[in-house]
Amino acid sequence: AEHGPSLAQSATQSQAALAYEAAVAGGIPVIKAVREGLSGNALKRVYGILNGTCNYMLTAMRETGRGFEDILSEAQELGYAEADPTFDVDGIDAAHKLAILASLGFGCKIDIDSLHIEGVRDVSVVDFQFAEELGYRIKLLGIAEKISEHDDSIKIHQRVHLCMVPLDHPIALIDGVDNAVIAEGDFVGRTLFQGPGAGEGPTASAVVSDLVDLARGNIPPTFSVPTDNLKRLTAVSMDELETAYYIRLNVLDKPGVIAEIAGALRDENVSIESVLQRARDPGEAVPVVMTTHETKEARMMAALAKIGALEEVVEKPHVIRIEHFASKPCEA
Amino acid sequence: AEHGPSLAQSATQSQAALAYEAAVAGGIPVIKAVREGLSGNALKRVYGILNGTCNYMLTAMRETGRGFEDILSEAQELGYAEADPTFDVDGIDAAHKLAILASLGFGCKIDIDSLHIEGVRDVSVVDFQFAEELGYRIKLLGIAEKISEHDDSIKIHQRVHLCMVPLDHPIALIDGVDNAVIAEGDFVGRTLFQGPGAGEGPTASAVVSDLVDLARGNIPPTFSVPTDNLKRLTAVSMDELETAYYIRLNVLDKPGVIAEIAGALRDENVSIESVLQRARDPGEAVPVVMTTHETKEARMMAALAKIGALEEVVEKPHVIRIEHFASKPCEA
Repeated sequence: AEHGPSLAQSATQSQAALAYEAAVAGGIPVIKAVREGLSGNALKRVYGILNGTCNYMLTAMRETGRGFEDILSEAQELGYAEADPTFDVDGIDAAHKLAILASLGFGCKIDIDSLHIEGVRDVSVVDFQFAEELGYRIKLLGIAEKISEHDDSIKIHQRVHLCMVPLDHPIALIDGVDNAVIAEGDFVGRTLFQGPGAGEGPTASAVVSDLVDLARGNIPPTFSVPTDNLKRLTAVSMDELETAYYIRLNVLDKPGVIAEIAGALRDENVSIESVLQRARDPGEAVPVVMTTHETKEARMMAALAKIGALEEVVEKPHVIRIEHFASKPCEA
Repeated sequence: AEHGPSLAQSATQSQAALAYEAAVAGGIPVIKAVREGLSGNALKRVYGILNGTCNYMLTAMRETGRGFEDILSEAQELGYAEADPTFDVDGIDAAHKLAILASLGFGCKIDIDSLHIEGVRDVSVVDFQFAEELGYRIKLLGIAEKISEHDDSIKIHQRVHLCMVPLDHPIALIDGVDNAVIAEGDFVGRTLFQGPGAGEGPTASAVVSDLVDLARGNIPPTFSVPTDNLKRLTAVSMDELETAYYIRLNVLDKPGVIAEIAGALRDENVSIESVLQRARDPGEAVPVVMTTHETKEARMMAALAKIGALEEVVEKPHVIRIEHFASKPCEA
């Protein structure tokens, strides 16, 4: 993910092959699927659950109602999480994998620095309860979308963050340590590849398939196209993202507070889809959950800055993006 | 599926390649996945939803509560089913696809004649209601399992029939015209490949990926190993299958009838797991549903012959096998 293009260049120069099936999604042959199996397609979007540690933790939090730190300790005991979990729980591992998939899928140079990366540390048990009520599952997804293609560059949006995914989307139901990759092609439509994303058996399976390929003389270009033909990746800033949002606020139950929050959203042209408010003991802060229709991230963040500054809002607003994967992101 | 080995032989003799990614599961690159992506594994089982027409019809019957003939007419109008639907609804198409997957996955010669094939014609709306109540989904599956491996032959059980699949198994939730293939390897564990199984776009995607492979010089053996090295397939008869069963009987509500049915099962050593009986107007036949624990198919069929012969049982018993995919089928 960080040195791929230069490694590929070295491999080409020394007439060697660079094989790396185990680098993404463990035992699922997804490098091969995207590079060879879907080679007839221009991909529009490639995304998925790319880190089994996070998926295990999110599944366990939902199923047990236990908190993040508690589940993390358990995952560490079970060997699903490292002693220093940063790489996994902050989304960095998933970002590496997404950057490789994007390069393969879109034929562009990897640009790991242009990825927007968020992890899973901020999610609370109460978010899982609200998600269930609203018909969503919370997943850490890596999402790469082609926005437009030009002669020498491709405009791509790459991001790793928590998502609320509707229950009727197959990725919502993939639980535990499994990984899953969805590739959307212009001819094939939506294909999904699911399986064990880590572990010695699955990793060995991927490495041996590379060796068998080499022995059979199957040596395709490292990143789908020869390294010199990879296009420049033009990154898209998060400000330009258009999606729906789940917002959870902790507010003091005073008259007019909902009106102030709704006003801040209206001022930024953000349209509210639903509001959930739970009763609490008088005097306590009350959780208020809102979902919005699709809007620009920049507008949403501006509204949230105003909302977070309100006296009655006693915590930094919690935000999870809602993904429907309905629109076709690519104009080209 | 019928002439594969001789076609592969001809291809080898004329130093040509035989490519057929579109032959199984349309746009899902599952030939490539099994032949190349999982080449490091000895597969234990390969199975899935291999016919989109049947999956569409089963999904529609469950969702709408409408009957088989009604949904078939609709599927024909929508272009999902042919004017003569035999090939799809009688399981023949799924059997062809399973035979190819089995040959690829296990390195054995195709033997289409040894496959047990049942279609979807006998399923009733009431079966979907009972399935829901019992926590299952009804799917037409093709299942190939390796029973044992010997020097020159492999013992394989191949069958296509309706299955009740537990709701926590991913294949239970794959609806509509999608296909899905699950391959279980000794190292990788369980991998799942899902996507559009038919249509001009997905088919073109598969054909073009074959052409790109040929252009790149990636020409692996037609069936994973050179044709001369394919092992002989020793078929397993359905009598030897061990699985659980769902039985639906239409019985006249007379004293002692359940005892007679239970007695017939006991005589064949079939253990009952649950019984569901619905109240009806007096005098009408009553549906009685039973599920059994795992038993031998031969014993089950013997018990059903006795049950079907009972005076109070007014219809041929309806049977759907319950698949948990839990046990490891391969001894070798």
